[in-house]
Parts: sequence; C-alpha cells; structure tokens
Amino acid sequence: MAHNLSEFKLIHWIRQQSTQSHPDLQTGIGDDMAIMQMGGQQLLITTDMLLEGVHFDFETATLEQVGYKSMAVSLSDCAGMAAVPFIAVVGVALPKEMTMEQAKQLYQGLQKAAEQFNCPIVGGDTTRWDKPLAIDVTMLARQGKHPPVHRSGALVGDIIMTTGTLGGSLAGKHLDFTPRVKEALALTDLVTINAMMDVSDGISSDLRHICRESGVGAVIEAKSIPISAAVERSVNPLAAAMNDGEDFELLFTLCPENASILEQKWPALSDLKLSPIGRIIAADKDASDEGYRVFLKTSDKTITPLEPKGWEH
Amino acid sequence: MAHNLSEFKLIHWIRQQSTQSHPDLQTGIGDDMAIMQMGGQQLLITTDMLLEGVHFDFETATLEQVGYKSMAVSLSDCAGMAAVPFIAVVGVALPKEMTMEQAKQLYQGLQKAAEQFNCPIVGGDTTRWDKPLAIDVTMLARQGKHPPVHRSGALVGDIIMTTGTLGGSLAGKHLDFTPRVKEALALTDLVTINAMMDVSDGISSDLRHICRESGVGAVIEAKSIPISAAVERSVNPLAAAMNDGEDFELLFTLCPENASILEQKWPALSDLKLSPIGRIIAADKDASDEGYRVFLKTSDKTITPLEPKGWEH
Repeated sequence: MAHNLSEFKLIHWIRQQSTQSHPDLQTGIGDDMAIMQMGGQQLLITTDMLLEGVHFDFETATLEQVGYKSMAVSLSDCAGMAAVPFIAVVGVALPKEMTMEQAKQLYQGLQKAAEQFNCPIVGGDTTRWDKPLAIDVTMLARQGKHPPVHRSGALVGDIIMTTGTLGGSLAGKHLDFTPRVKEALALTDLVTINAMMDVSDGISSDLRHICRESGVGAVIEAKSIPISAAVERSVNPLAAAMNDGEDFELLFTLCPENASILEQKWPALSDLKLSPIGRIIAADKDASDEGYRVFLKTSDKTITPLEPKGWEH
Repeated sequence: MAHNLSEFKLIHWIRQQSTQSHPDLQTGIGDDMAIMQMGGQQLLITTDMLLEGVHFDFETATLEQVGYKSMAVSLSDCAGMAAVPFIAVVGVALPKEMTMEQAKQLYQGLQKAAEQFNCPIVGGDTTRWDKPLAIDVTMLARQGKHPPVHRSGALVGDIIMTTGTLGGSLAGKHLDFTPRVKEALALTDLVTINAMMDVSDGISSDLRHICRESGVGAVIEAKSIPISAAVERSVNPLAAAMNDGEDFELLFTLCPENASILEQKWPALSDLKLSPIGRIIAADKDASDEGYRVFLKTSDKTITPLEPKGWEH
C-alpha cells in the first residue's frame, strides 16, 4: 500500500473517521498490511490498485509483465511485514478493445508471480469499460514462525539496513523484480527485526514512514547507500537511489548487536546484499514537523534534512 | 462478483489455469465468494470493481451514493452466501480533478454501508489518474452459526424463492439498497437453504448460474415473480423484473417442506416479502447447452426457454 503525500492526508483523515473498533483488529491503515486475529492466528491483508499510465504503460511493458507486477507489488507488501502470502483476489477493469487472448496474457503474468510464492488466485471480478486498464490485487497473508514486523517498532540507536541495490527501477526492475518474501522470513528467523517495510516510494520517503510511525528520526550516510548499476552513470546516482522508488527491496531497522550477527550469518544464507545505511536517532520534539526527520550525512560530513523525493546534490 | 457472459468465458479459462491446489482452500472462482479454512474457521472473500460510466455516473448519483453502493455490493455478496461481513479493504483510482472534499464524500458513503454491518475498512490504496473513478472493494466474511450456502446445492424438486421485489433498479434502488445480510442469516437459522446467491444480473441470468453450478434446470412462473413498483407501468414489467439486474435481493432454493415452514414462520421475523417463483427440475443431459436451462411458464400455460436477459413478451 504505497501512497504519495497528498494521499497520506486523505488516509490520515480516513483513520480519524474510523469510529468502529473491533476486538479482532490489531493494525489498521498505515502499515504495509492490516492485521486481524482469526481463530487464534494472525491474518494480514493488503490491497494495491495499479493503473495504466501511472504504474505501467504498454510502450515499455507487455501484458504479462503488467500482470506480474500487479501481483508482485502485493507480494512485496507481505515481504515488508515478514508475512507468508496465502491467497489473492483480483479486480480488473479491462479496456473494451482488449481481446480474450490479451486478457489471458495479463492473467498469465498474475499467475506467474502468484505461483512463485504458492499464493493461489481464488477469486476475482472482471469488468470492461472504454478506459485504460486498472488492476486491483488484494492479498491475504499469514504469520510465519515469527510475528509480523511493523513500521512502528524502530528504536533509537537501531541500525538501518536495506537489501539489494536502489535506484533506476524504471529501467526495468519495476516490471521484473523478485518480492523479498523469502529473505524477509529468513531475516526474522535469524534476529529480531524492530521495524520493516518494502521500498516502494524510495528510501527518502519510505524511511520517513518508519520514523513517523515509530516516533523517531534517522540519519543515513550517503556513502553507504547501495546504488544500482542502472543509475551509476546517471547525472545524480545518489538522488536516483534515494528517490526513484519501486525498488521493492526491504528497508529495516535492528539493534547493533543483531546487525552484527546478521552481517556474520547472512552470507551463508543468501547472495542478496545487505547494506547498513544509517542509524535511528531521537525525534526532535520541538521541530515544527514533529521531528520525525530523516537527515543525510554526505562525504564532506555535512548533515542536511532529507525531504521525501526532494534531495538534489 | 458479477460478470457478463463473455467474462464467464474468461473466468472459465482462469479456473482451468489454476494449477495450484491448497489444502485450506474449498471454493474458488465461481461462487459469490471464495472460501478458505483458517485456524479451524471458515473465511470467505469477495472483490468487486465498480467503474464510473459502467456501474454508476455522476449525473444520477452523488459521491456518497457511489461510495455506499461500492461497499453494499460486496455486503450483498456476503448475504448471497449467508456469511457474516468481517472487514473490508478499498482500492480507489481517483480522477485527478477530484478535490479532497469530494474524496471524503466518497469515503463517507463507503463508511456508511460498512458501519451498518459492523464491517470496518481496515486498509486501502488510494491512487490518482486523469481518468474516471474506479473503486475496488474486497471483503472478508466469516461463517455465521451455519455453514455458507453455495450456488451449487440446488436439488431437483426444490422451490425457488426470492426476497423483495425485482426490476427497475436503475430508478434508484441500485444506489440505495439494503444488502440482505441479516435476512440471509435469519433464513439459514430457520431452515436449510440448499442454494443461494444475490441477484446482481437479474434472475434470468442469475438463476442460470445456480442451475449451471448445481447441474440442474429450473422452471419459473411468470405470475409469481414479484414485480417492483418502479416497473409496474413500464412497457414490459415482467421482462424488467427478470432482466434489469442490480436488485440485490436473495435468490435461493429449498425443499418444499422447508419452504412451507419458512412461509409460516417468516412473517413474524421480517417485513421483507418472500416469493416462491418456481421449481428446480432435472437437467436435460441431451441438450446442446448441457441442459442447465431456465424455463418460463406464462399465464397461457406455455413453457419457453428463458435466455439470460433475453426474454421479451
């Protein structure tokens, strides 16, 4: 569930409206997924609406790729909470000129991603209109061996880490990424992860979500950010790595002792790179924005506030 | 989950693709909702995509009405299976010119319907594009006192019944209906209902769905169909009652003994009218369409096949 800033205002308003309480409900709008109690088990749910011209277009993507991405985005939400994908339902608004054959290609992409994680598509709603393609995937997940990891658990002193490399997703990765479901479960199996989410908006935005939900601040080090090969030769590789978004990597925090354990044990488990990129600091209660700030420390040792998508060299 | 005929072809294809089996999965695509086992309980799920210009337009509906309808359609799916609504998530593609105030009106409508049935909206995804409004509501439901009722349980000899009156929904009811959740639970509490669904496409189509899933045929009596006051003065009230759709009433079958019990006991429980409209008959195995046919018996005693949406006086 990724949102731009104006949508956050709307979501904040929706949160306030929610006058209903439910004894079986734990986490509502704000995390990667909402959590419910169901027959003694934890059940998680997420929904993602993907739109032609916004999240994909058919000049650069095939129908199968679009289907794959639509499912993989929700799988990545499961990864962001270290939950096990269970089932998916798909609502689709097909453009009226789309042929049966084309609709099948779209579904093949959806199935391909779903099957990778043993998450069957159990239902759907298929409609047609004379407008572009819209796909909404809703996914249920179950707790794995360990409880789901929230955005709200970051503690002052935590190390901030990411998986993989960041930036340049539009060059192709946004259509063909592997949701980090297995890695998230492996991480929580090794150590306690205090806070986690998947990187959908870029770490300049997403780290702020963790800070806001946890009531903390953060400092990240420019030199530590793992920059994707896709942006190494771009005008501003660091800005691309922090702002491009749709990396679908994991962004998480853990105590320094656990970070050391992880760095020792991880290479035996996975080829996926882990990078410590900074530290969680105390929020500045006196700041006008409630102090849930992310700062960037550059090579010349200057520390400047990092605005969501706003950092330019 | 309502579909037109060409979408049924696509859904049939999707069904065949589903190579994944899941020990916790009972019913896939085809019923009003899919059913899973979850910690010893039954969990049901449905998704409905509503589109501006297809399911609503802003010449005849307010934003609040559109929000209400979007949620109520899924609540009606719960009613169709006699399940108890649990939680909902909402994916929304907002037209970019829509103001914050307008988006709030939409959510107020969604909330209004959800609160009527104690079904909190626990998550969502809000996106924007320069296209018309699209809303996808996914709802989870739980088993009530009795197991969910499927479309596939109709037996030869069953009485076919509907709640309320049918036809003319576009005159207003499609925006302002009460999902028959309470009535469905009350029905299953009184007697065994063999097959049930909500009337979204009109009984000429929906009764065929029950017949196909149950492997049976049906005969309905023209004189017994409860015609809505909204179409009484139309050119062809009977055709409107059978074909208009979006009645969101219950269509169900039960054995004659239980039908008698129901007709005796129901009036003390509810003001909602129940009408026996026909009988389930054996399928004609030799017919080219596999014989899952619905026939209409008119006042002159002639019996003619009733095509989906196709009957004209």
